[in-house]
Amino acid sequence: MTNRIVVTKTHIDGAPKETDFEVKSQVLAQSAQPAGSVIVKNLYVSVDPYQLNRMKSDSSSQSYSFLAAGIEIDCYGVGKVVASGNPEFQEGDLVAGLLTWGEYSVLKPGSMFRKLDAMGFPLSNHIGALAFSGLTAYAGLFEVGKAKKGDRVFVSTASGSVGHLVGQFAKLHGCYVVGSAGSKAKVELLKGKLGFDDAFNYKEEADIKATLRKHFPHGIDVYFDSVGGEMLEAAVANMNLFGRVAACGAISEYTGSGRKAAPDMVEVIYRRIQIQGFLCPDFLSVHSDFISATCDHLRSEKMVSVEDISTGLESIPSSFAGLFHGSNIGKTIVQIAVE
Amino acid sequence: MTNRIVVTKTHIDGAPKETDFEVKSQVLAQSAQPAGSVIVKNLYVSVDPYQLNRMKSDSSSQSYSFLAAGIEIDCYGVGKVVASGNPEFQEGDLVAGLLTWGEYSVLKPGSMFRKLDAMGFPLSNHIGALAFSGLTAYAGLFEVGKAKKGDRVFVSTASGSVGHLVGQFAKLHGCYVVGSAGSKAKVELLKGKLGFDDAFNYKEEADIKATLRKHFPHGIDVYFDSVGGEMLEAAVANMNLFGRVAACGAISEYTGSGRKAAPDMVEVIYRRIQIQGFLCPDFLSVHSDFISATCDHLRSEKMVSVEDISTGLESIPSSFAGLFHGSNIGKTIVQIAVE
Repeated sequence: MTNRIVVTKTHIDGAPKETDFEVKSQVLAQSAQPAGSVIVKNLYVSVDPYQLNRMKSDSSSQSYSFLAAGIEIDCYGVGKVVASGNPEFQEGDLVAGLLTWGEYSVLKPGSMFRKLDAMGFPLSNHIGALAFSGLTAYAGLFEVGKAKKGDRVFVSTASGSVGHLVGQFAKLHGCYVVGSAGSKAKVELLKGKLGFDDAFNYKEEADIKATLRKHFPHGIDVYFDSVGGEMLEAAVANMNLFGRVAACGAISEYTGSGRKAAPDMVEVIYRRIQIQGFLCPDFLSVHSDFISATCDHLRSEKMVSVEDISTGLESIPSSFAGLFHGSNIGKTIVQIAVE
Repeated sequence: MTNRIVVTKTHIDGAPKETDFEVKSQVLAQSAQPAGSVIVKNLYVSVDPYQLNRMKSDSSSQSYSFLAAGIEIDCYGVGKVVASGNPEFQEGDLVAGLLTWGEYSVLKPGSMFRKLDAMGFPLSNHIGALAFSGLTAYAGLFEVGKAKKGDRVFVSTASGSVGHLVGQFAKLHGCYVVGSAGSKAKVELLKGKLGFDDAFNYKEEADIKATLRKHFPHGIDVYFDSVGGEMLEAAVANMNLFGRVAACGAISEYTGSGRKAAPDMVEVIYRRIQIQGFLCPDFLSVHSDFISATCDHLRSEKMVSVEDISTGLESIPSSFAGLFHGSNIGKTIVQIAVE
C-alpha cells in the first residue's frame, strides 16, 4: 500500500508558503508496523497555526518538539480503521486523535487516539467545536479567564477556529462580547450569524488602544488572546481591575514579523491583571462538561460551528499558509477522503 | 503650630532628583481641622519607589491618584498622637498608617490608621518587615507565587525593602533562592547575612538570560518581580512549566528610561506561565498569618529586617532619589523625630 503525506521541504522561519511543502509517497506495509498498531484512513485533518512553531529552524526551545524537514507531521484528525493489530479496534471503526497530514496514519500503541462516537454530528465537528478548538475556547474562557455573567469580553482572531466559539460561549453565558477580525466579511459574520455584540476590522484601525477604549468604555474584564503583540498591549491598556488575559496563541509573533507584546507592567500591577498562558490538554478535567454543554448548544442551534473545509491532501499546504494571511474563516479543516 | 512638609516643586517624569523637592512650611491649627481629626507627630515615614508614579505629568492613568506639585505627599508611617478630636485616640498613643512626608500629619476621620502595639519590636520594623513591605513579600511569594517547598525562586531587587524579605521567607519555606542586586556589597549581603543560596550583580552581567540559565539549570518556578523590563523577559525565558511571576513593581519602567518588558508570549503559552500583578492591600485576609509568622521569624532571629534609616525631614528627597540609583539597602525609612 502506498501512502502519500505532506512534509516540509526545509525549516520555515517566516510566514509559510505553499511551496515550503511537498507531497511525498511512502510504502505502508502493515507487517512492518509495531505490534498493536492501527492503520487509519484519514478522513478529516486539522490545520492549525501552532504547527508553524514546530517547523522553525531554531530548535532551542524546550517547549515543543521540533519537526525535521521531510518527516510526517502529526495533527488532530478523524479517520476510519482499515487494519488493526489492536483487539480494541476493528476495521471500519471511526477514530479521533493524533493522525498525520497524509492519506493514512499509523497509530502506534500508546499514541493518543480513541474510538469516535459521532453522536449525530458531522465528522468535521469532531475536529473543531467538539475537539481541541472547542475545549480551548471553553476552558480558556471559563477556567482561565473566569468569565462570569455580565463580564466584558474581548476576543481577538474572533472568526478563527477558537475565537468564534469563545464569543458564542461568552454570549450564551451572559457576557458582553466584542471581537476583532481581519476583514469586513469576518466582521459581518461576527455581528450577524455569530451574535457578537460588536466587532471591528483591526486592519482598518490605526490605534487599536483607542478602538478598544471606544468599544469598551467600561473596560475589559476578560481578554481571550490568540494574537500577542500590539493587540495584547492594547487590551491590557484597556483592562479593568482584576482583569484576566487567557493567552492560548500569539500568531502575530509566530512568524517573527510582528514585534513582541510589551504590556505595560505598571498597569498590570496597579490593576492586578493576570496574564495566563494555557494549553487545552491541561483542562481535560472539564472535558465532559465541555462536551455536554457544546452538544446542547449545537443541537439547539444556539451555537454555530463555522468550518473552512478544503478537499484533498494537496490542499493542506495552501490551507496552512492561508492561516497566516487570514484567508480562513472558522476552523480550518482538510477533508482527505469521504467516509 | 508650624508644620514643615516635603513637596514636589513640579511634576517629575524621569528619575527624581533631590532638587525636584522643597520643604514648605504651613500653619497647623487644630481648630481648623475637621471634627474627629487626630494630629500626629511623625516619627518614621516610608519612602517607596511607587510614589514616583503619582508625581508624573501624565495623569491619564486611572490606576492611581496623581499628586499635584506643592501638595502633601502621603506615605506609610508611624507617629505619636499630639492632639485628638477622636475619643478612640489619646495624646501619646502610637499610631501606624497613612501619614505624610512632614513633621506632623492630620489624620482625618475615615483615613487609614490604627493604634500601634509595637510588640517589643523597634518602631521602624512597623514600617517595613511588619507592614506593607513584609505583607507584599509574604502574599506575593505564597499567595500569588504559590511557592512551595523545593521550588526554585528568583528575586529581583533582592536587597530592597520587599526583596530581602521575599528571599528569607522563601529560604525558611525550603525553596532554592537566587537574588539579583546592583552592587557587590548587596550581593555579599544576600549570600551572607540573608542566607540566599546565590546572588549576582546584574550590572556586571551582559546577558541576564544566560546568567539566569547558569543559576537555574533546572529552571525558575517562581519569579518575584519588582523590576519589569529586561529582567522580566529574562526570567520568563528561564521559567519552568506552570511557572508563576508575582509582579509587584516595575522600577525599571517607572522613570521611562528602561524599555518595557516584552516577555515571549509563545513561551508564556507553551509553558503555561502566569504573570500576575498584585498589590498587598488585596491580601489583608492573610495579614494575621503574616504578622504571626514574621514576628516568630524576627524574634528567633531566623529573619533579619534590613533598614536604611536616614534622619530628619530634609533627608526625604535624597532618600527618595537614591531609590532610583540603587543607593538604598533594605527598607528605606526616614526618622523624622525621636519618640
